[in-house]
Amino acid sequence: MYRAGVILSGCGNEDGTSIEEAIMTFLALDNLGVETLCLSLDKEQFEVFDHLAGRAMQMGQKRNILVESARLSPGRIKDIEDTAKDDFDLLILPGGKGVLKNLSTFMDEKIEFRVNSSVQNTIRQAYSDGKPIGATSTAIVVLAKALGSVSPNLKVSVAGQSQSVRAAIEKFGVSYSCEEEICIDRDNRVVTAPHLSEKSLNSMKDTIEVLVKKLVELVNR
Amino acid sequence: MYRAGVILSGCGNEDGTSIEEAIMTFLALDNLGVETLCLSLDKEQFEVFDHLAGRAMQMGQKRNILVESARLSPGRIKDIEDTAKDDFDLLILPGGKGVLKNLSTFMDEKIEFRVNSSVQNTIRQAYSDGKPIGATSTAIVVLAKALGSVSPNLKVSVAGQSQSVRAAIEKFGVSYSCEEEICIDRDNRVVTAPHLSEKSLNSMKDTIEVLVKKLVELVNR
Repeated sequence: MYRAGVILSGCGNEDGTSIEEAIMTFLALDNLGVETLCLSLDKEQFEVFDHLAGRAMQMGQKRNILVESARLSPGRIKDIEDTAKDDFDLLILPGGKGVLKNLSTFMDEKIEFRVNSSVQNTIRQAYSDGKPIGATSTAIVVLAKALGSVSPNLKVSVAGQSQSVRAAIEKFGVSYSCEEEICIDRDNRVVTAPHLSEKSLNSMKDTIEVLVKKLVELVNR
Repeated sequence: MYRAGVILSGCGNEDGTSIEEAIMTFLALDNLGVETLCLSLDKEQFEVFDHLAGRAMQMGQKRNILVESARLSPGRIKDIEDTAKDDFDLLILPGGKGVLKNLSTFMDEKIEFRVNSSVQNTIRQAYSDGKPIGATSTAIVVLAKALGSVSPNLKVSVAGQSQSVRAAIEKFGVSYSCEEEICIDRDNRVVTAPHLSEKSLNSMKDTIEVLVKKLVELVNR
């Protein structure tokens, strides 16, 4: 039985992982009999967002990324710092603004952004071990940044991305951009999808199902 | 096009709505072309639970039920107090401990518990208007309490419930308990499912799909 590492950045689309993308990823993995191990960062969130009012909370509330991520995956989550390279067979990064706010400095620094070093090391280690890596929505920019300098021929989808994210993806070593439903880079074992936020829940489910299926097919090839 | 009211109690299985049950409910509704309108309470949560440590947070953090519920449904949620009787055609209550902690006093008062008056009024109004009502997992006890005295022949599932919840369900006017996969009380237009927490995500998805389909079939019959 394979196990997928899933990197979470909190719980909620505006300051963490997209709940819908995470659950659809878990569903697709469960469907294929793949175990899930969630990984997250034991540090404070960039901000706490009020999803009702549509703005950051003003009351100075602090939340921990790992603790909030655990809402999505109680009992199946660990600090990414404590992850061994053999803990998973494939790696998935779901989207959500938390990727830009908590897993990287994109929110503040835009195209000059850095990826959190533990997240970057985990992605690079998986890549050099030949493990398939998937990313959806905002997470594609972090994947491109982490792998761009080590994989000069990386192919990822930029479809549906905001202008600033698209510019950043294209800057970091991505030599080719596919616009299809799912972008499969077989040489690098990297699978990405267009930004999913405008999709219906069923359409998102279908796209993530295909992405996860392709990733599993790429294990040990 | 029908619209479903979905009553949320926060975001996270231990102090709010079960994220998995909520998303699977939204998926099933989307699948049938039913719009979703989430309803929640603009008041403070009973507690904030640390889903990583498995205990309530000690730091005295306060969170608002409506604001946290909005993480599950940005842009499609309103205060249950502002809900008009014609805002929805069917009503669904997903589970999670938030039902026992935030929508009712079950956590403190067990079998002597009360349901929040706005939640109870919304359930009773829907019932008297002949709208189908569904509930899963912990939410069944709140449904039973709200309707028990107005519907002496209510039939709901008690399968998989904890002893204390089961005792409470059976106290409040429920004259018959079905143990099947889905319990359909056609006379009262009430559909319930066994407790879902032990199920795989795909099996939960299938059960909720059937529950939602039955509810939609009962609209305007």
